[in-house]
Amino acid sequence: MPIRILVTGGTFDKEYDEIQAGLVFKESHVAEMLRLGRCRVPVQIRTIMMIDSLEMNDAGHEAIVQNCRQTDETRILITHGTDTMVETGKFLAAAVLEKTIVLTGAMVPYAFGSSDGMFNLGSALSFVQTLPPGVYLAMNGQCFRWDEVRKNRQTGYFERVEKSRTSGDN
Amino acid sequence: MPIRILVTGGTFDKEYDEIQAGLVFKESHVAEMLRLGRCRVPVQIRTIMMIDSLEMNDAGHEAIVQNCRQTDETRILITHGTDTMVETGKFLAAAVLEKTIVLTGAMVPYAFGSSDGMFNLGSALSFVQTLPPGVYLAMNGQCFRWDEVRKNRQTGYFERVEKSRTSGDN
Amino acid sequence: MPIRILVTGGTFDKEYDEIQAGLVFKESHVAEMLRLGRCRVPVQIRTIMMIDSLEMNDAGHEAIVQNCRQTDETRILITHGTDTMVETGKFLAAAVLEKTIVLTGAMVPYAFGSSDGMFNLGSALSFVQTLPPGVYLAMNGQCFRWDEVRKNRQTGYFERVEKSRTSGDN
Amino acid sequence: MPIRILVTGGTFDKEYDEIQAGLVFKESHVAEMLRLGRCRVPVQIRTIMMIDSLEMNDAGHEAIVQNCRQTDETRILITHGTDTMVETGKFLAAAVLEKTIVLTGAMVPYAFGSSDGMFNLGSALSFVQTLPPGVYLAMNGQCFRWDEVRKNRQTGYFERVEKSRTSGDN
Repeated sequence: MPIRILVTGGTFDKEYDEIQAGLVFKESHVAEMLRLGRCRVPVQIRTIMMIDSLEMNDAGHEAIVQNCRQTDETRILITHGTDTMVETGKFLAAAVLEKTIVLTGAMVPYAFGSSDGMFNLGSALSFVQTLPPGVYLAMNGQCFRWDEVRKNRQTGYFERVEKSRTSGDN
Repeated sequence: MPIRILVTGGTFDKEYDEIQAGLVFKESHVAEMLRLGRCRVPVQIRTIMMIDSLEMNDAGHEAIVQNCRQTDETRILITHGTDTMVETGKFLAAAVLEKTIVLTGAMVPYAFGSSDGMFNLGSALSFVQTLPPGVYLAMNGQCFRWDEVRKNRQTGYFERVEKSRTSGDN
Repeated sequence: MPIRILVTGGTFDKEYDEIQAGLVFKESHVAEMLRLGRCRVPVQIRTIMMIDSLEMNDAGHEAIVQNCRQTDETRILITHGTDTMVETGKFLAAAVLEKTIVLTGAMVPYAFGSSDGMFNLGSALSFVQTLPPGVYLAMNGQCFRWDEVRKNRQTGYFERVEKSRTSGDN
Repeated sequence: MPIRILVTGGTFDKEYDEIQAGLVFKESHVAEMLRLGRCRVPVQIRTIMMIDSLEMNDAGHEAIVQNCRQTDETRILITHGTDTMVETGKFLAAAVLEKTIVLTGAMVPYAFGSSDGMFNLGSALSFVQTLPPGVYLAMNGQCFRWDEVRKNRQTGYFERVEKSRTSGDN
């Protein structure tokens, strides 16, 4: 059975608009990234939304959960902005879906020569093929359970935390 | 314990020399690739050789096996040219090392904007963290046991084969 | 005598900051661009300011004029944001410096793989070597006198205009 | 009247073939380079041949001269490999065409992120618009008359030489 990829936007898909002289969302780059990565894993890609994860809200969380629940695939990769990726992980865990769900993202837009996007996509797609059911974040070559990780906003890296501290923020 | 990365060259590390107007090996790009990928997995990198895998011979195989055996790490990632990656996997399997060894490579040099190099590196580094002892090839987002894969030289993709057919070539 | 290059910032030098998730100015990329372009024209580079040209004001204009006047070189290339490049050209023309001054810029930041930056830099550096004293804008492979050009904000291209219409804007 | 661009191949247009694991010629990248450079100079592009300039011979020289002679445009830019660019310049000068002809090339293929290709293209296109009839080479941001330049094969840079020494080689 193929891997389901759900696209929600995030830095992954930001690009530079030369007329607005700023960062915008247009189409997702995930299919092109898989092509350049010469990926041969069967995947089904669906774009749910195309937003900065700072704009993620309950309706967004609900849409992601519904898509994970309704799709036939039991292994799901979600591209997501890094700022609220942990929050979405918590939401997905609460839904108890009995599927292997891996969230990933990038710190540098793919369109700006992002190598962390390509690296993370390869990493997340590998973890999602091998891990048991659960909700995980794949960032920086590492894979974390949803309840043992936070983003360090000073460094931009994801860090393992004691489970009791997960709800806090830095 | 960190992941041991052994560098042997391959397309991964080829670069363009503007005076010779051709492809050459200089230094390995693996450390830079991990930095751009914002990798935070502890790794130890050692360059064993820097060759096109068509030049791999028994002495090269022996050097790779010795490095795998003598290093303390039990999880090892090897960058290798794609043309003879399967042969080297067979050699490593015969050595019965009881370690998790993942070979990976690229079809396009990193220095030419290779996205398959970054993608494969992220993929291989993830598989090596999760798989049980054995010898594997991680290419195209997929992971193959050493005895169930071959490179299709017409397409450049790695394909799963029946074990009995592994020794043959296309 | 070398060419004097004066850096004022602009899209040319914008880069992506992964922590702020936005566009910022750090150091100028002009020296690196000339190195990658394998440029052998003797140049002297001075960074006057590092701003978005929408923030250019009279003090900025005055600083640019003073730098052009005081430098010994008689051929001067100025990197500048595109939005107010025409205004700065008018200011320079009013100063009557009897030097060949060419303003150039980019629509896409160099750090995002901008090819228009490299192209424009090569173009501007060639025009500044060949044209008689005057104030010019080199954009899109073309060279315009300061009083016969405007930026079309819908398309991002520079267009030739009747001199009488120069003071207007679209 | 538009600028005529004649494509003959050279490093400019070499690209990496992942199946052959080597450098090949496919289609010319010149039109794409002009698009990325956001060039608005009217041009007409014709591909005459697609070869490494070490393979240039008398038939090739003759084809280039014929194309320059027969085209209506009086300003012509020729993309050419760097190794024999000076030879082709001599051939063109002998044809006495009374047109402005500028040869240019690159040391690094455009497809490998060549910035010298974009830089040289912007430079050559500017020189061809401003110079009087004659045969020139535009490389490294500089413009040389055909009889005062040679390529330094050790450094890859083009150097000005005394006219009497032009026929020699290093």
